[in-house]
Amino acid sequence: MHARLSSLLCVVAVALTTVTAQPASAAAFSPPSQVIPGIPAVNPVTQPWIWPLPQNWERGSNTLKVSKHIRFEGRDARHPIVSKAIKRYQGLMFKKEDYPMIPYNWSTTDYKPSRSSLNTVVIDTKTADDHLDMDTDESYTLTVPVSGKAVLQAETVYGILHGLETLSQLVQYNPERRSYYIPNVPWKISDFPKYKHRGILLDTSRHYYTIQDIEKFIDTLSWNKLNVFHWHMIDSTSFPYVSKKYPQLSAKGAYSPRHVYTAKNIKHIVQYAKERGVRVIPEMEAPGHSTSWGYGIPEIASCLNTQPYFGYTVQPPAGQLNIAHPKTKEVVYDLIDEWAELFPDSFFHAAGDEVVMQCWSNDTYITDHLQKNNQTLMQLFEEFVLGMEDHVRQKDKTVMVWQEMLLEYHFSLPKDTVIQVWVGSEGVKEVTEKGYRTIVSAQDFWYLDLGFGRPRSNPYPEVQGAGFNHWNRVYSYDMRANLTKEEADLILGAEATMWGELADPNNIEDRLWPRAAAFAERLWSGYENPEGEALISSDAILRLLPWRERLVLRGVRAGPLNQGFCTRNPLDCFQPPNPDK
Amino acid sequence: MHARLSSLLCVVAVALTTVTAQPASAAAFSPPSQVIPGIPAVNPVTQPWIWPLPQNWERGSNTLKVSKHIRFEGRDARHPIVSKAIKRYQGLMFKKEDYPMIPYNWSTTDYKPSRSSLNTVVIDTKTADDHLDMDTDESYTLTVPVSGKAVLQAETVYGILHGLETLSQLVQYNPERRSYYIPNVPWKISDFPKYKHRGILLDTSRHYYTIQDIEKFIDTLSWNKLNVFHWHMIDSTSFPYVSKKYPQLSAKGAYSPRHVYTAKNIKHIVQYAKERGVRVIPEMEAPGHSTSWGYGIPEIASCLNTQPYFGYTVQPPAGQLNIAHPKTKEVVYDLIDEWAELFPDSFFHAAGDEVVMQCWSNDTYITDHLQKNNQTLMQLFEEFVLGMEDHVRQKDKTVMVWQEMLLEYHFSLPKDTVIQVWVGSEGVKEVTEKGYRTIVSAQDFWYLDLGFGRPRSNPYPEVQGAGFNHWNRVYSYDMRANLTKEEADLILGAEATMWGELADPNNIEDRLWPRAAAFAERLWSGYENPEGEALISSDAILRLLPWRERLVLRGVRAGPLNQGFCTRNPLDCFQPPNPDK
Repeated sequence: MHARLSSLLCVVAVALTTVTAQPASAAAFSPPSQVIPGIPAVNPVTQPWIWPLPQNWERGSNTLKVSKHIRFEGRDARHPIVSKAIKRYQGLMFKKEDYPMIPYNWSTTDYKPSRSSLNTVVIDTKTADDHLDMDTDESYTLTVPVSGKAVLQAETVYGILHGLETLSQLVQYNPERRSYYIPNVPWKISDFPKYKHRGILLDTSRHYYTIQDIEKFIDTLSWNKLNVFHWHMIDSTSFPYVSKKYPQLSAKGAYSPRHVYTAKNIKHIVQYAKERGVRVIPEMEAPGHSTSWGYGIPEIASCLNTQPYFGYTVQPPAGQLNIAHPKTKEVVYDLIDEWAELFPDSFFHAAGDEVVMQCWSNDTYITDHLQKNNQTLMQLFEEFVLGMEDHVRQKDKTVMVWQEMLLEYHFSLPKDTVIQVWVGSEGVKEVTEKGYRTIVSAQDFWYLDLGFGRPRSNPYPEVQGAGFNHWNRVYSYDMRANLTKEEADLILGAEATMWGELADPNNIEDRLWPRAAAFAERLWSGYENPEGEALISSDAILRLLPWRERLVLRGVRAGPLNQGFCTRNPLDCFQPPNPDK
Repeated sequence: MHARLSSLLCVVAVALTTVTAQPASAAAFSPPSQVIPGIPAVNPVTQPWIWPLPQNWERGSNTLKVSKHIRFEGRDARHPIVSKAIKRYQGLMFKKEDYPMIPYNWSTTDYKPSRSSLNTVVIDTKTADDHLDMDTDESYTLTVPVSGKAVLQAETVYGILHGLETLSQLVQYNPERRSYYIPNVPWKISDFPKYKHRGILLDTSRHYYTIQDIEKFIDTLSWNKLNVFHWHMIDSTSFPYVSKKYPQLSAKGAYSPRHVYTAKNIKHIVQYAKERGVRVIPEMEAPGHSTSWGYGIPEIASCLNTQPYFGYTVQPPAGQLNIAHPKTKEVVYDLIDEWAELFPDSFFHAAGDEVVMQCWSNDTYITDHLQKNNQTLMQLFEEFVLGMEDHVRQKDKTVMVWQEMLLEYHFSLPKDTVIQVWVGSEGVKEVTEKGYRTIVSAQDFWYLDLGFGRPRSNPYPEVQGAGFNHWNRVYSYDMRANLTKEEADLILGAEATMWGELADPNNIEDRLWPRAAAFAERLWSGYENPEGEALISSDAILRLLPWRERLVLRGVRAGPLNQGFCTRNPLDCFQPPNPDK
């Protein structure tokens, strides 16, 4: 046919474009004519199509059919969290695309699948305790034999959830045979995450997300084996939280009665997330970025929507908590009490970012207070912040704060404080060399909301690289760069961010996925496999392309990584030598 | 309440966040307490919420209710195109959002709407002829009196379509009264487009769009008063067109039997577009970017998927038409014949972009031909291209080509050729000073697909500014910069582009809208109003924010332009002085 036919790979690739001579009317999928049944297709994939890549995996060369009536056996399969997950995965495993863009037959090593089918998966956990926290064991092992039962074992139900996800990704749809199968049996997978804290920040204040939007967001986190939803619920722009004690905060500070989160909503979300192995960590944005509090309780706000806002805030509207007013502490502590109950997680984010001093130094209530108490503004600020954090600690919570608390204001933070780095990747070194634990959200790599121009009201600091972070840049970032072993051990994990200036339910999925998947793999799989070989993007792209297709099949509006041709024929696009590599 | 209450504007703004003390349960929308019924709210909008802005408009200060049973009168209302449009707009006019983000009461000048309602719109066109082409008159006048019938007059049905769109945008939903109204009656609008050719290029080869996707794309074009769908249907990556004479082209070159466009599909799309005032101009991508032709008819291709592809193509896969082979001309001319019939538009795009000489100079068929005929490669290339264009001209079509034909290869193009500028905005001067008409798609302002990193297989030239074009940059570009009056008169219009490397149905709407709306206003409204005053982005943003909200209400997944707070309280974000302005 043409010059490239000498390569068997190309046969596979071209085959998919030559399925029939009657394209428009053909309903059935004819086998690609160049593929001779019974003769294995070339399989150029050196890693399995599992995202994120498991730590340890072995595979064979047989093909196993999968019954659509697959059963999950064992007492542990009846654990409420597991049984619900099984129901979900019985749906997710059997999605199909009759004309897939992926070279699905890459993963077919044997065109004569076994006569028997996979009918049963045995579920086995060590404990029925379903407490979920940072130290929860998420490991699992999965074996899929050539015949007989598959076995999924884990310490906890959360390991089972990850194992079910992996199992679902092993199942491929074969459009020629119109059936589901697992290629490359037998499988032996033994897997665990490299980092404990793997999250995404979602900002529901700048734009509102419905409960359904948040559910879908959590679903997609869990499919990527991410385990933290950092809920940036409130900010200057709106106060959607319906407080029991202070209903006026949302009544006057939310965008509308529709744009709110009630206690019932929050409990639902927390439970929904838990059932998917996702912790929900609330961020109480304070004392900066707090305009919206002031509509409901004016006396606790300084520089409330001062106009022009320049110099009073990094973005409109201006407004910070009045840190001198006794009512402010009262409200903040009461809200911490409410959230401590609503959010069972042991982490609590006490914020502390992007404070603008001029807001306070132009507030006579505050300057009078300073004069009367012979205090500097920074002393008052530190007193307020440490008081707030202490109140959180009294609830038996670990305090997370943004990096400014330590690196810019140099407050005396207890050593158990977890510092979230965001301004730039160099902050990781600065925080860990001071001996603090860190969660990394380096703007120059893992802010996924940036790169869409500078909104006129949103003067981000012009950090080098603060533009759009391409998936390859996201994937390339090594948090451990320039760190000693001791410093690197202080990294608990990381969070990618989806701030809300230019994101809302209309575009969030394309903004997040598949880039956040690239991030997720770094957190789960790490930087090297157990043999010490680096995980590199040239291998990753061959798995990320089909993973994006699977996300789309599952209903996620993830944007494409490249031309459809490259999804179909990855080695024709991503073969070395590649100057962009 | 707080410092900003002195401003009446702020009352309106804050009012929207204070609708009720029982936010979660409240179903009804209580009137903002600070707004005293009967006293007009401050109306800071100096331009009406119509996008794109009409050329001439006058408005009054009364409020008119609109009946949901509004009737359209007159013989011309029964024209098939008009009557279908009326049905659509009877739906589009009455969308509602009970808790809108826009300061809807900005546009309410009188809290006592008229007792009478707008029940009737008289439709009146000069001609029933519905031929649609570049010179079709699209002007209209619309009057909405304080009471009685509204009148929509136009030369053609296409003017009526634009007038219906404008009318639909005048209709606002009032969530307090749960009713629809037109603010600021009486209205007198007399409107027409500044540029005749106002298009968007959609690339359905790199990624496939279903017929429904394309319909929704066309709907959104028409709502923005854009009138050209430049259909970049085929490219190297796939050949979705099902040719009557050469069915093997799509059978082997499409991604699959599902990823095709049949003659029936195309006729449907052309008719669908026509009914919305949108011309469909097909682009026959040739002789570059033509790999996909070679799977069905191998002898007409050079360097078919040569690997490694570097040096043979600007992006994978390599493959150009074999311009020496007699069969190539035959196939191209036959396809032109088929398309000339399927696409009635008088414009036909003959491409000619991004040819890589090495593909041909390494093809012995071509080098042998050159030797035998004592010809240079450039002579052969020019002969092929001019032959192809001449064949298009024989079909009574105006030939459009990409700028390389003129500016890079310096071919002897007839003066009636329309040159599409893309490499950079400086090309507009270069083309028009040679006396050619142009359609402007300057990459540095109006490519809407760029800015998402450099895909590894897609080495775009690193044009300065070829990143993400923010809406304000899109809006700021003046095509006439540095041109003489004569040169400027050669600008027929422009096209924004949505190339398909990183766009598909999952993300196209956020990528296009509302940025393409900013583009659309420049094309329709121009750069100055009839009084010669510049149309500037600080005014535009106040209209673009609610227009984006309306697009979302109509089902378009357009991303937000800024924080929700700024949609709600635009003057708190966009008041001068603004350093970003």
